Amino acid sequence: MKVGIMGGTGNIGEGLARRICIGGKYDVMIGSRDPAKAEIAAQGVVDALAERGVKGTTCTGGANADCCDSDLIILSLPFDKIESTIESIGKDKFENKTIISLINPMLRYPKDKYFLHDRPPEESAALAIQKLLPESAKLTTGFNNVAAGKWMLLDEELDYSVVVCGDDKESKNAVKDLVSTVSKLQPLDGGPLKTSGIVESITPLVITLAMNNGLKDVGVYFR
Amino acid sequence: MKVGIMGGTGNIGEGLARRICIGGKYDVMIGSRDPAKAEIAAQGVVDALAERGVKGTTCTGGANADCCDSDLIILSLPFDKIESTIESIGKDKFENKTIISLINPMLRYPKDKYFLHDRPPEESAALAIQKLLPESAKLTTGFNNVAAGKWMLLDEELDYSVVVCGDDKESKNAVKDLVSTVSKLQPLDGGPLKTSGIVESITPLVITLAMNNGLKDVGVYFR
Repeated sequence: MKVGIMGGTGNIGEGLARRICIGGKYDVMIGSRDPAKAEIAAQGVVDALAERGVKGTTCTGGANADCCDSDLIILSLPFDKIESTIESIGKDKFENKTIISLINPMLRYPKDKYFLHDRPPEESAALAIQKLLPESAKLTTGFNNVAAGKWMLLDEELDYSVVVCGDDKESKNAVKDLVSTVSKLQPLDGGPLKTSGIVESITPLVITLAMNNGLKDVGVYFR
Repeated sequence: MKVGIMGGTGNIGEGLARRICIGGKYDVMIGSRDPAKAEIAAQGVVDALAERGVKGTTCTGGANADCCDSDLIILSLPFDKIESTIESIGKDKFENKTIISLINPMLRYPKDKYFLHDRPPEESAALAIQKLLPESAKLTTGFNNVAAGKWMLLDEELDYSVVVCGDDKESKNAVKDLVSTVSKLQPLDGGPLKTSGIVESITPLVITLAMNNGLKDVGVYFR
């Protein structure tokens, strides 16, 4: 199985690539607008695998479009880059694909130290992205609320819940399988994509909690 | 210190009364539209205290208006009963009071098994309630996301996070102090009342998670 990460050269994308490869069950394609940058990031993942003696999986770098050959595609791009990225790749390349959005649009209020969900008219980034994709594409949420600063700290466990919302049972199960190979993440079925706005809004809340309680890298666990 | 619980004869209100009294630091006034019902509920709390050998705190029952003598007032009423309750008691009785809203208005979609936040135009029940109260009243959120079914199960620990949002530092600290006397609840400063919409929306999500994952009484822990 292969996972493509569009925008895989950012901190979250690269951390995800490492964590997924280290899980030992998925190869990863790191995609970027700048394929040379993606190749450097991929080499970093390969080095991390060698350092840890992980065998059986590998990581390569390329253009964002190259991610469309993968079984699962993760969108790790800023929300305002999604439309142009899908357009430049071609909407048809996403036909029948299982796609994961970890995007949480946020508004920052530095004076009063809080963040809010920057809610699109569709109620969530995921529901807005769904409108840009072909009808056959199966979009889910995933990895939204994992504390961003922890992705690259490979020696730290990620002991959090990951809520997977989506309208297609099979693709949700595929995403839950992926999630459960990453550190100690606990995948949970969050119902249809219509609930994704709540999931996205938890990220601005955990950042607000970190700021106001002297905490670092706050995540969420449902139990 | 005394805590008044308006709507304290419901499952959550009565469970809260027991848990707070058992904590041993606060007396509780259970308020109800029907004072006789509140007295019966209060007797139940007194019995539970005796059964557990807890001394030093007590519980009494009365009308909702009687809760206004308390140091902290918890609103444990349905959202659509708040306006008429405040009106019938008299807005001035809430002057300078610290008031806690645990209200989470929800919409239920039984066919697709999910719940959403029934978001008022003000973005949250708390922000809508704030407009009904005098300017000197200090409103916070508290106890919103505790699994409702667990309040009355006194032998079960409540090992969850409680996000306290509000615009007055001192009253937020008073609410955090109260929260930390209840079972193993962990109070967290959630920033200003403007973030309360996110906190309220977590409750429909935890119910959705319970339904879709074969779980019971799901709550949230931030870490």
